[in-house]
Amino acid sequence: MRAELSRLRDSIDNIDAAVIHMLAERFKCTQQVGHLKAAHKMPPADPAREARQIARLRLLAENAKLDPAFAEKFLNFIVAEVIRHHETIART
Amino acid sequence: MRAELSRLRDSIDNIDAAVIHMLAERFKCTQQVGHLKAAHKMPPADPAREARQIARLRLLAENAKLDPAFAEKFLNFIVAEVIRHHETIART
Repeated sequence: MRAELSRLRDSIDNIDAAVIHMLAERFKCTQQVGHLKAAHKMPPADPAREARQIARLRLLAENAKLDPAFAEKFLNFIVAEVIRHHETIART
Repeated sequence: MRAELSRLRDSIDNIDAAVIHMLAERFKCTQQVGHLKAAHKMPPADPAREARQIARLRLLAENAKLDPAFAEKFLNFIVAEVIRHHETIART
């Protein structure tokens, strides 16, 4: 039981490292989006784009056997952070 | 400007698809951990393991130039969902 738990936790740790590195790249992209938006006086949030992202991620989640409601919550969690960054960029 | 925004959004969409698939695999692992814990009457939460995960992810985030505070918030967001799953498994 200890060995099995340890094996699963090693996989979880590997996945977390991959996700952290992906998110670092994602924020690099959204920082650039933030600068573009600020330079062109566009609003930080874009509800139409977000609605498309949610629909797409829910479908991807379903196919990957992940709870689509969780995928939506996850995107909202990330987008809240991105909008916080965009607001900071727009202020500076 | 439209082309640049579109290019960045394509990258964001690719990263999101990768992360969704990673998270699907992560929940497969934690579902197995949940079953192991339930079978051995272990509590759903494990504060010592979580403290080690937070310290490690903060370090990985720093090296990847991601805000360590965000990495910690992210892990807490995921772990809250995992504990919800473990409680459901323990009840059934």
